[in-house]
Order: sequence, then C-alpha cells, then structure tokens
Amino acid sequence: METLSAVTESRSWPDGEVVEDLANLRQKVPLVHCLTNDVVNNFTANVLLAAGASPAMVVTIEEVEEFVRFAQALLINVGTITTSSAQAMLRAAAVAHETGTPWVLDPVAAGALKFRTGIVKELIGFQPTVIRGNASEILAVSGEAGNARGVDSTASSNEALDAAVGLASSIGTVVALSGEVDYVTDGTSIISIPGGHEIMTRVTGIGCTLGALIAAFLPVTPSPLRAATAASAVYAFAGEEAVKENRGTGSFAVAFLDLLSTIG
Amino acid sequence: METLSAVTESRSWPDGEVVEDLANLRQKVPLVHCLTNDVVNNFTANVLLAAGASPAMVVTIEEVEEFVRFAQALLINVGTITTSSAQAMLRAAAVAHETGTPWVLDPVAAGALKFRTGIVKELIGFQPTVIRGNASEILAVSGEAGNARGVDSTASSNEALDAAVGLASSIGTVVALSGEVDYVTDGTSIISIPGGHEIMTRVTGIGCTLGALIAAFLPVTPSPLRAATAASAVYAFAGEEAVKENRGTGSFAVAFLDLLSTIG
Amino acid sequence: METLSAVTESRSWPDGEVVEDLANLRQKVPLVHCLTNDVVNNFTANVLLAAGASPAMVVTIEEVEEFVRFAQALLINVGTITTSSAQAMLRAAAVAHETGTPWVLDPVAAGALKFRTGIVKELIGFQPTVIRGNASEILAVSGEAGNARGVDSTASSNEALDAAVGLASSIGTVVALSGEVDYVTDGTSIISIPGGHEIMTRVTGIGCTLGALIAAFLPVTPSPLRAATAASAVYAFAGEEAVKENRGTGSFAVAFLDLLSTIG
Repeated sequence: METLSAVTESRSWPDGEVVEDLANLRQKVPLVHCLTNDVVNNFTANVLLAAGASPAMVVTIEEVEEFVRFAQALLINVGTITTSSAQAMLRAAAVAHETGTPWVLDPVAAGALKFRTGIVKELIGFQPTVIRGNASEILAVSGEAGNARGVDSTASSNEALDAAVGLASSIGTVVALSGEVDYVTDGTSIISIPGGHEIMTRVTGIGCTLGALIAAFLPVTPSPLRAATAASAVYAFAGEEAVKENRGTGSFAVAFLDLLSTIG
Repeated sequence: METLSAVTESRSWPDGEVVEDLANLRQKVPLVHCLTNDVVNNFTANVLLAAGASPAMVVTIEEVEEFVRFAQALLINVGTITTSSAQAMLRAAAVAHETGTPWVLDPVAAGALKFRTGIVKELIGFQPTVIRGNASEILAVSGEAGNARGVDSTASSNEALDAAVGLASSIGTVVALSGEVDYVTDGTSIISIPGGHEIMTRVTGIGCTLGALIAAFLPVTPSPLRAATAASAVYAFAGEEAVKENRGTGSFAVAFLDLLSTIG
Repeated sequence: METLSAVTESRSWPDGEVVEDLANLRQKVPLVHCLTNDVVNNFTANVLLAAGASPAMVVTIEEVEEFVRFAQALLINVGTITTSSAQAMLRAAAVAHETGTPWVLDPVAAGALKFRTGIVKELIGFQPTVIRGNASEILAVSGEAGNARGVDSTASSNEALDAAVGLASSIGTVVALSGEVDYVTDGTSIISIPGGHEIMTRVTGIGCTLGALIAAFLPVTPSPLRAATAASAVYAFAGEEAVKENRGTGSFAVAFLDLLSTIG
C-alpha cells in the first residue's frame, strides 16, 4: 500500500503525450530488431506493422551484430531460448550496449528455469533500457522469490510493484510491470496504466508483443519511461475496444490488430 | 469391417462426460509443456488458452528436464524436428516416463522420413500415454506399410483402425486416430467421434493442436481414453459449429478459436 | 523508362490462363516442400492450403534430401536463416538441382547482411527456377547496389526492373519482382501484374507467401513464367478484394485467406 500511494500519475489513451508519441512512431517508422520466441514471431511482426513500425527478425549469431548496428531498437525475449539463440541474444545485447541502441528485455519465465535465469542475469549486465515482465518475472529478476509457473504469473502486479521500483532504481532501467493494472517506473516516478481486459491473458503473446511495441517507441520518444507508458496505454485501449464486439479469443486477436492499425 | 463392428460406443458434444471433463479442465487450468512444431506453435498456444489450459513452450535441452517435472502434461510433436530438438524430445520423454507425467506423442509424417521414424521409435520406448495421428502415421508407427505423403494422410482412418487397436494393445497406450470419423482406442474399447468438417484439413495444425488438447485433458480426466475422447469431441463440435458462418479458411480458423473459448 | 516500355503484356485475374492454372493446381494438389522463415511458417502453410496445395515444412539436414526427392516443388526463403538452416537449404537446393525439382528462392534482405548474402550466392549456383524479391533484394542479388533496410524495400520496383531482366537472362531464371506493380520476367518477356493494395505491406509475410504460391504453381503450369504470373495475379486479386470490407490489418489477413480459399 505504501508503494501504491507513491503512484505519480495515471495515463490512458487518448492522453496527449501518448497520441503525440504514436503519431511520431508512425511518421518515423522505426526499424525494430526482434529476437523473440517461436510462439509469437508472427504476431509480433503483425503488431509492429499494425502500429506503424518496421519489424525484422534477424536471429543468427553471424548476423546479429551487423543488424543491431543497423536497427533503431532491439527486443530480446527469452521465451523459447535455445543453446544457440542464447549466444545470439548475448551478442546482440553486448552490441546494443556498446552502440547505445535502446533495447527491451522480456525475461519470460525467469526464476522458473535455471538456464534462462542465468542468461537473463548476463543480459541485464548489458543494461536493458526497459525490462518488461509480469509480477513473477519482475520479482524473480529483482532477486525476490517469484513463484513463476511457466509463462503465466502467479503473483499480482501490486505485490511486485515494490520490486519493480527497486529494480529500476538499482540498475538504472525502466521497468514495465504487466498485470490487471500495468505500471511503468524508472525508480522515481510510478505511472499506472489502467484498462485492458482479462481476455488479453487468453491470447498468446499479448504480453510479449507489448515488449516489442515498447522497443518501437524507444527511438521516437523523449524518454524510456514515456515509451513504455505510450506502448502500454495504446495496448490497454486497443484491448478494451477490441473486446467490445468480441465473440471469443479468435476474433478478439483479429480485432486487436485492427484497432492497433487504425487507432489515432 | 470386422474392426468397425467392434466400435464400443460413439461420443459427441454435449455428451455428459465430455461436458464434465471440459468444466474440470477449465477449473484446474493444467500446465501443458509443448514441444511442438514451428508451423503450429502459435496456434497450439491459442487453442490451449481458448480451451482453458496453460501452455508453455520450453524447448531447449538445458531446460526440458526441469520443466517436465513442473508441468502436468507433455506434448511431443515431431513435425519440424531438428538435430537438436530431437535430443530435447528424447530427454523430455525420458523424464515424463520416469515421473509418470502423462504425455502425448504426435508422430507427424512418421514412416515417410527415416530420421524422424527412428526418433519416433525411440520416443515410443518411453511409453507415451496417447499417440495421436492420421491413418498413414498410425499405420507406419504400428509397423504396417503406410504410404505417408508428407503431413497429409493417404490412407483412410477405417483402414488404419485395426492397426490402431493393435498398437494400443501391444504397447499399452491409447491411440487417437484422426480422419473423417475420429476413433479413440485403448486396445479394448473403440470409441468413434463423428462430426468435424472437411475444411478442418485446410487449416494447418488442426490435427497437431488436437494432440495438445488431448495432453491438456490427461491430468484432469479419469483415464487417457476419456481424455482423448473429450478432446476429440470438443474439436469435432467446434469444427462443425465454426463452419456454419464460414466464408473461407481464414475466418473458419478464427471462428474455431472463438468456439473453443466459449463452448460449455 | 526504356525498360518499362518493354513490358510485353499485363495480366490480372480472371485472365483465362490464370484461371486455368489455378484450377489445375487445385486438381493436382502439388506437395510443396518449404524451408521458410520462422515468422511466416504458419501463414505460408495456410496460404498453400487455402489455394489448394499441400505444404510440408521438413527442415532438418537429416531429412531435406529425402524429402526434396519426394516433393513436387521446393521453396527456400532465407528470412530467419541460421547456421544450421543454411546447411539444410544448401543441401535441399543441391538435390533439387540434381533431380530437376522446380524451386523458388526468396532472398530476404540479401545485400543487407553478409552471411545471408553469401549463402544466397551459393544457392543461386543451384539454379533456382524462380527468384522472388522486392526491389532492394533483386538489385542486391543482381549485383547492383540495393539499399536494403531489413526486410522492407527502399527501392521501387520500377528502378529494379532493369536489374530483374538482366538477372533473369544472365542466369536463366524467372524473376518475380514485387512492388506497387509486380513484374515477372524470364529475361525476354516482361509481364506486369497490376492490382494489390498498400495494406498488403502491413501484414507480415504477404511477400514471403507469394514465393510459396509460385512454388506451388511450378509443377502444374507449362512454364515458370506462367507459374509466377498466375501466383502474382491470384495474389493481387485476393488483396484487392480482401481490402474491400477491411477494418484493419487483422481482418484483412483473415479475408485474404478467405479469398484464396474460395476464388475461382
């Protein structure tokens, strides 16, 4: 409750800054280099295209360095990490760190599995601009005991808010905490983004693709806090609107992309 | 015809047991560990979420053992098997066998290609709880001469029913045979599940995701036979209903997910 | 402009030859072996099934040789190429060359990244029947300076038409050049395929799946030029029609598959 009282402000579409940021994204069409998981590759590309960005999945160790130098932003999502993709991710993160390319880390199921938890720790050494996760993942990454259960969170986002603030301030990043209400924090400000709908947890990759959209906003907004806020607010609005004529999870996902491609 | 006369019973939604099993699945939200193919990863996750289960694609050799111990059920589908995924599949199956975690084997295109046929044989050594396949695959796995043609079956399910019964009884598994009419057998009982629609063969992964749904039912039903029956009956009904307002294969797939997420 | 004046003819659905070719495809159900990228695997399979072909993604080095000998056509798309998939692609192309199996090369982002540019050069040594790409890719492959920017083209198709004609005639292939207007050339004839819609660039994989559809037409049409023309004309028509009741990129993709599955 102490932490909750510290929420600085609340933002939701059509907040003026968010509208401006989306217009800016559409005008600049940022190239977003995505190292993401096999389940959401297609949906991620379609979300970025719908919103107005340019996605590119360049994944092999021989190419990531070259492409990070070329892209405006990078997403690393460890959902279906493998022996070889882990090496490509570490290389990409190192280059992004060196070149100052803004990047988002999505530590899917960190804490629940040793191999990825170790890789995520190494990745964090390359200072992600934003870390996006659910409560269990943020608790795990911040060193608290998250009870991660696969990719779905078993802790609520309120419980993890303290951990998010601590993580953001200790490593100098922005944390985007997904849950019933989304929170975004840089360790000082805490912005809540209400909205969205429960059905968003029943379509695979809504969380993962939010990470990609945050990455797309990074090069076109004045701060990582604002980028994460804009992406979250656009998502929450699209989710709320898409559910209105919803007949189930299949048509919800279609309507969600329709909204992203026509909003603003 | 001899075998056909041995069909014990026929089940279709809203059969009382199937309705009860689906309600149970939704209440327990089983965590299903999926090692499936690159073509259907996304659709599989969305099918499981729509039906009420919790999918997790954890695929690398470093993590499968840990995650099988964590999950309530496992799916192994060899559709796009690779050198490295084959090793992860064998490891996962071995652990599932050791821990008694129920698991489904989907031997896509077994018989048609030597490498996967060999891996499938090894996997069967770890006693899958259910084997799901089309007629060609079941014929191939049972040692008969299936004329597999890639992933699509060239034999009818009636021809393969004898092989399915023999396979189920010889290795003590349940076989779910997909075709115009689906059959499920434990070597003694043979249950037919009528329904479905031809258009289901024109959307990729309808068969593969049935394997995943069978896996989801395994930990929440009294027997593998009942789990395979429930999943098949839910699928046949969703397919028949989804085709009603169908305008083509694209909207059919959307309506199919809608049905799965709202049925019951 | 000189090249443009050389356009031999223009084709669009329902051109008589195209209608005949699609009917032929549906009757013969060609088995298309696809080595394509992780982003579009699912969409590719659904496009081929909708159009009436039989897709099979058999990707591992242990199996590609066996399966190329079995398939009627092959697609190689280097979009998310990796160390190991590159080896499988080279093996598949070599076998297709040896057996005379018609095959399509989609050199995604060639010119922009060294590793794939080298592999693409090797692949071309195995004489693809058709090369499909956007302007940047065709310019890069033909040795001109394409300014590739990830997977999206920065050059217009008109600029690249000279390069396409030169490439087709120098290596004896058909080039399918995607852009606002599509062109298909064997180095002598240049066929323009008008139509389509800008929204097609905002759904991932519309270009990649066109490559797959060209592959499907190859074994059922009298010439590679005609196969590439038929696929392009079907695509342009489906895109134009699908956009009519369009509410955004999500429902466009659904309507596009619906059109492909019901046209003709």
